Amino acid sequence: MFGHPRGAEPTPGPGPILGIDPGLSRCGYGAVRRDGAALRAVAAGVMRTPPEWALPDRLVALADDIERLLDELEPSAVVVERVLFQVNARTAISVGQASGLALAAAARRGLPVVQYSPNEVKLAITGDGAADKAAVQMMVTRQLRLTAMPDPPDAADALALAICHVWRMRLNDAQAAGDGERGAPSGRLEARVAAALAKQRGGAR
Amino acid sequence: MFGHPRGAEPTPGPGPILGIDPGLSRCGYGAVRRDGAALRAVAAGVMRTPPEWALPDRLVALADDIERLLDELEPSAVVVERVLFQVNARTAISVGQASGLALAAAARRGLPVVQYSPNEVKLAITGDGAADKAAVQMMVTRQLRLTAMPDPPDAADALALAICHVWRMRLNDAQAAGDGERGAPSGRLEARVAAALAKQRGGAR
Repeated sequence: MFGHPRGAEPTPGPGPILGIDPGLSRCGYGAVRRDGAALRAVAAGVMRTPPEWALPDRLVALADDIERLLDELEPSAVVVERVLFQVNARTAISVGQASGLALAAAARRGLPVVQYSPNEVKLAITGDGAADKAAVQMMVTRQLRLTAMPDPPDAADALALAICHVWRMRLNDAQAAGDGERGAPSGRLEARVAAALAKQRGGAR
Repeated sequence: MFGHPRGAEPTPGPGPILGIDPGLSRCGYGAVRRDGAALRAVAAGVMRTPPEWALPDRLVALADDIERLLDELEPSAVVVERVLFQVNARTAISVGQASGLALAAAARRGLPVVQYSPNEVKLAITGDGAADKAAVQMMVTRQLRLTAMPDPPDAADALALAICHVWRMRLNDAQAAGDGERGAPSGRLEARVAAALAKQRGGAR
């Protein structure tokens, strides 16, 4: 839908926030940039490896794709979904392998690397940590002012990760500005999410 | 116990078989070489990353250690333990991440990369797919004619992986030589293991 920004004119300011939804068959990516008060999607898509290939070769192909993505987008931070054993029972190992490649590739470049759990992302995007995928996709579409839902869903999940991190940074900024008096989230949803996120973050981690 | 072969005189012939028992806190490695009819350990040890470091930094450190290991040992094949979700429930994700780095690093160099499950290794080493760790360590010590058990156990597990692959290659050689008439395993244990391994391999994979 957005494609790689190959050939696009360079955008000013720091690089976008790149979200990666790790997976071996399909690894979603999505990058967003703050554009004034709004958020803008600058790239979204999915990296695939052929299931019929041997596992080591698939891992090399994915690692190469991730490197190319980092080269092209020059993100200012990378957000990778935290793999939860319970959530990904069937694919835990291969999702873990893919996430390891993504985390190491970003860290090797000295980029800030952040992980959020699926629940944290749902909470940040919809205000409900138990929201279903459709609700997340709808909110991603709305918050990025897209004309259609990001497709495939892996791309939407990756965009949601990136958006989650923008909210988190705004929350940090607000807290740094002094108990949220200046620069605090102003919208109703935003305030609700910020409070819930702060509460969850302060809990058992 | 064996240490890296830094400064050791170069050994003739193809590189050793390198076994890697993936893990983030402790990643075991062990390399063996065929020495006539016998097997010889040429390196064994463990790569560690500090638990207090951030996950992405630990993954980078481990990836760097694996690259150095491949540089130094110049293995002819790399054997990585197949991560089984059921066996590694608590650490499935981090073991998966570590295994992904090892598999990709070896495949990127064009090395043959093989995975065996813990049961396959136990079967190949002891003749019993349900053997306990102590039995595996004892057989590794005996088959490599070591004067003491490899320490830490992660190193023994990695040596066991490498030995397992040597047995497997012997089995393949025997089969290629024509239904085991020439070059077939001669020892009693060896024949038993080869038959069991062939049976398991032919089963549900």
